[in-house]
Amino acid sequence: MSRWTNIIEDLLSRVSDIGNTILANSDADSIKLSLSEKCQALLSNVGEATGLARSREILDDYKRLDKTEQLAFFQQIYANFGVDEDLLRQTVNEWLKHPDKIESRKIHTISEPLSQELIRRLNLSYGGTAALVKMREDLLEHIKTDLSLAALDKDFQHLFTSWFNNGFLRLERISWSTPATILEKIIAYEAVHEIQGWDELRLRVAAHDRRLYAFFHPSLSDEPLIFVEVALTGDMPNNISSILSGDRQTLDPHLASTAVFYSISNCQTGLRGISFGNFLIKQVVEELKRELPDSKPFCHHVTCYLVYVVGSTPNLH
Amino acid sequence: MSRWTNIIEDLLSRVSDIGNTILANSDADSIKLSLSEKCQALLSNVGEATGLARSREILDDYKRLDKTEQLAFFQQIYANFGVDEDLLRQTVNEWLKHPDKIESRKIHTISEPLSQELIRRLNLSYGGTAALVKMREDLLEHIKTDLSLAALDKDFQHLFTSWFNNGFLRLERISWSTPATILEKIIAYEAVHEIQGWDELRLRVAAHDRRLYAFFHPSLSDEPLIFVEVALTGDMPNNISSILSGDRQTLDPHLASTAVFYSISNCQTGLRGISFGNFLIKQVVEELKRELPDSKPFCHHVTCYLVYVVGSTPNLH
Amino acid sequence: MSRWTNIIEDLLSRVSDIGNTILANSDADSIKLSLSEKCQALLSNVGEATGLARSREILDDYKRLDKTEQLAFFQQIYANFGVDEDLLRQTVNEWLKHPDKIESRKIHTISEPLSQELIRRLNLSYGGTAALVKMREDLLEHIKTDLSLAALDKDFQHLFTSWFNNGFLRLERISWSTPATILEKIIAYEAVHEIQGWDELRLRVAAHDRRLYAFFHPSLSDEPLIFVEVALTGDMPNNISSILSGDRQTLDPHLASTAVFYSISNCQTGLRGISFGNFLIKQVVEELKRELPDSKPFCHHVTCYLVYVVGSTPNLH
Amino acid sequence: MSRWTNIIEDLLSRVSDIGNTILANSDADSIKLSLSEKCQALLSNVGEATGLARSREILDDYKRLDKTEQLAFFQQIYANFGVDEDLLRQTVNEWLKHPDKIESRKIHTISEPLSQELIRRLNLSYGGTAALVKMREDLLEHIKTDLSLAALDKDFQHLFTSWFNNGFLRLERISWSTPATILEKIIAYEAVHEIQGWDELRLRVAAHDRRLYAFFHPSLSDEPLIFVEVALTGDMPNNISSILSGDRQTLDPHLASTAVFYSISNCQTGLRGISFGNFLIKQVVEELKRELPDSKPFCHHVTCYLVYVVGSTPNLH
Repeated sequence: MSRWTNIIEDLLSRVSDIGNTILANSDADSIKLSLSEKCQALLSNVGEATGLARSREILDDYKRLDKTEQLAFFQQIYANFGVDEDLLRQTVNEWLKHPDKIESRKIHTISEPLSQELIRRLNLSYGGTAALVKMREDLLEHIKTDLSLAALDKDFQHLFTSWFNNGFLRLERISWSTPATILEKIIAYEAVHEIQGWDELRLRVAAHDRRLYAFFHPSLSDEPLIFVEVALTGDMPNNISSILSGDRQTLDPHLASTAVFYSISNCQTGLRGISFGNFLIKQVVEELKRELPDSKPFCHHVTCYLVYVVGSTPNLH
Repeated sequence: MSRWTNIIEDLLSRVSDIGNTILANSDADSIKLSLSEKCQALLSNVGEATGLARSREILDDYKRLDKTEQLAFFQQIYANFGVDEDLLRQTVNEWLKHPDKIESRKIHTISEPLSQELIRRLNLSYGGTAALVKMREDLLEHIKTDLSLAALDKDFQHLFTSWFNNGFLRLERISWSTPATILEKIIAYEAVHEIQGWDELRLRVAAHDRRLYAFFHPSLSDEPLIFVEVALTGDMPNNISSILSGDRQTLDPHLASTAVFYSISNCQTGLRGISFGNFLIKQVVEELKRELPDSKPFCHHVTCYLVYVVGSTPNLH
Repeated sequence: MSRWTNIIEDLLSRVSDIGNTILANSDADSIKLSLSEKCQALLSNVGEATGLARSREILDDYKRLDKTEQLAFFQQIYANFGVDEDLLRQTVNEWLKHPDKIESRKIHTISEPLSQELIRRLNLSYGGTAALVKMREDLLEHIKTDLSLAALDKDFQHLFTSWFNNGFLRLERISWSTPATILEKIIAYEAVHEIQGWDELRLRVAAHDRRLYAFFHPSLSDEPLIFVEVALTGDMPNNISSILSGDRQTLDPHLASTAVFYSISNCQTGLRGISFGNFLIKQVVEELKRELPDSKPFCHHVTCYLVYVVGSTPNLH
Repeated sequence: MSRWTNIIEDLLSRVSDIGNTILANSDADSIKLSLSEKCQALLSNVGEATGLARSREILDDYKRLDKTEQLAFFQQIYANFGVDEDLLRQTVNEWLKHPDKIESRKIHTISEPLSQELIRRLNLSYGGTAALVKMREDLLEHIKTDLSLAALDKDFQHLFTSWFNNGFLRLERISWSTPATILEKIIAYEAVHEIQGWDELRLRVAAHDRRLYAFFHPSLSDEPLIFVEVALTGDMPNNISSILSGDRQTLDPHLASTAVFYSISNCQTGLRGISFGNFLIKQVVEELKRELPDSKPFCHHVTCYLVYVVGSTPNLH
């Protein structure tokens, strides 16, 4: 029993603050702490319950920053939460003397910047992922002013690539039965062929020969990440207006021989560079083949007529 | 338009193999490829559609390996998918000459072992996460034979920590309305106070003064990760048998003053070292406070009576 | 076993036609059958599987009738599917001679018009309930021409009262998370204070101090039966425009002291006379009290500011 | 506006008691009222909100009756809530003099016993349907003592036939993913080939070549009404033990040529005589054909091997 007793004591000590107003006592000090100091406190924290409250606090404080304060915040994080250079130097020198596989892998672990662990901890609080996606959206702006912040962005990119791993994404067909709260985001995010309102949206999601599919992530449940619009047609259309026209003839989808992917829109600027496009198209093609198994010739006519990417840099790697 | 044209061509080239029997032509060769060679092919791959099929193939092949072959597989991965040591030496020497923040962060990126990217790609295929959790369960066994494999396990640990991030976990109450397929896993995984069958399970999940909560992950939807059993009692019980007894008097939960966390069981050996325990307890406490808001004194009596961890090393850090 | 053998044979004989093209052989004849003759066949039917196909056929045929044919159809049903008058006379005479409770109850059973059983059988086919609600909508029109059809309508009323029993209705809050397919029906059915489009709808369902609740029935799953719009306000408003105004100040619902039921709309003309209104209001009041338990004074200020009923005859009995 | 004003006043008067403790003031009297007097009060009621509370009260009181009191209750209902005989005599005499269709239909309406409206009102309260099904289960027992109560049972039968109309039933496959709370009812209700426990249940619902389907009703959501067990086999089995055997070889369902309906169990004694069996079998056959469209020969081999009905009178009409 003695081993478990230790674990219990350990566990209890770590959750002992539950139910108390966790950071209440230190509130007076807390207010005086700069955002950067709070981040420092979060990283030195052992109690996870306290950590959660701290994460929440940092994300809330961040939301209130203006543009100038944001830039200062990112610069402080970059300056103060880098690699432990002394430890790295020591490990590197050892490895140069005695190069070996275990040691080289150790360099990777040792050289992880503290900012990465910081982002990881911020993600733990409720709503953390969404707040971090927004935070990176800001960061991408500030990189234009201070190029050195691109190194900090690597941390976001690395973690977002793990978190928004295609294995975790959920493909959903957006139809006229989709909640209005999501439909209005589709109207807002469509960036190639603008959707003028609900009537036009209806043409794109409710017509028998039109499809709209989006990727969702469990942590951003009501927020589409990317969506693609598909027209099922008889022939390859000559121009986009024949696809978008409101008074065209609807085609029985079982008679379609071509699937035109006429628009792709990324929805989250903060996820720029995290690639979803190929997977989305691949999964939609599989979905269409499952739905329309009789359309034999169809699969030879998957066509990307027009693709488009939100933001200045295309991110379909 | 020309920029988009490039993107389209790029996209099309990468999904062009969709609908074809992707690896069919090379099947004859493929069979001759060792598992390690297939992994090499997966990493050098650019087409993601082909990559998916390749990932699936590797995970399927892996399942058929016997224990000896598994060990050989892990050793090959460790030997052949390490750090690019030439590039690392070059970067490191540059940094030693001109130490600076951007350079030290670059070392982290450069020193990532290839095995990490390999695991990331394997995760993309459908069912990949579950297969990798199983694979790590095997790896943990083989480390006992070959200690150097512990370095390879660092990759799994690093990625699993990201993927099984507490922010992505879903707390669910396990009750008598839970599907039998999950209930029978609870019976199987309970490691502290064994559950003898369905009748005993019923006592633990359906009694008014008993609770059982589990964490689930979107990629392992029917597999509990960890669960905790709670007894709502009037006083602190003297011994565990008063909690487990079948003929005890049921207490109105609104009259409870103590919550005894009498058992915690990890369900996935392949997730050893990935910490869920504290968060589970914290969330359960919050859930109970929401459900029983009138039980004022209750929150001062959260008690971990007995905790237990599957596997040899406790993983409640 | 012999008793069961009989049941089995009976059962098998009745489902024996399953899997065959049930009415196929008699199709040639079937086309020649008038709708009224098909109804006759449905009533004399014993095989329920055949009955289902027959019901479906009658409802499909009915849909193709023009107004004149509809009138003729209802008149035939009324003329040919009445009470068995010979049997009734006999039972009645017996009762007059020997009045007794069992006999008087028997009169009720014996005097049921065949049209009632006909409607009951039509309801069994998939989509039958919706088709019958539409059929009654037509019947209500034709009563204006032929008053004797009001007696036939009694059958619909009697059965609809049973089927749309308040115990079977499901209250749902209509919000901005409701599927667009239902929201557009709300726009269409609102009969008191017209909703001009999606933006105006948003004001009525998504504002913190506005509510819209509807009743649904399991057999008409995507069709609201009736809905009520509620404004939570501080004082009793002087006029409706202060409620509908787009640029008013939103109130924290927990500070509301009055619930103004400013609009009630019945959605299904075919359900005229089947009363839902009181129950809807009652359930909404209970729902609001549950959601806002702290608004003590609130429950004394439930106010029906303006109510309205679709169709010419108010049906809020 | 004046017409609506009346409606509003009417509506308000009827819901005016909402939020008050509805029957509180009259509680003292209420207790002195016999159950039969309370039923009288319910029928003479106009306020529906009061009616709901009254219904709830009657059903609660009823639950506390012992067998002797139940019999007395049913006899009182039968004696006091019959047909309005004076009105009936008058209508009947008129009709005998001037027989006509409208008049004969009027006899049906006029001769409805009050007990029918009573049951209808009791059904409105939350949980009313379930309580009435239980009440009829008792009534069926008491008919053995007092045959005249069979006339009262006609009311239940008539209304249950409407409410449990096949058009309102929901077919569900019972599998190993079904909540335990329903699975344990399957174990309890199986009446032909008893299920010995969870392991045996698993053989019947989770094996690839076994199916179990049940009908549910929206008002009795967790209570199966009837269920059927199906074995998919290669040939027609010689005996039941080859179907139930635990160590038989599992068949790929796509290779099945025969569907053996080896057991049908009614679950609700209180629904005896309300026919579900044929529809259940018919729908299951359609479900199987949808699931296994390639099993061409299969549909010619739908076989009811053994059927069984709970209770003493088979109710598969």
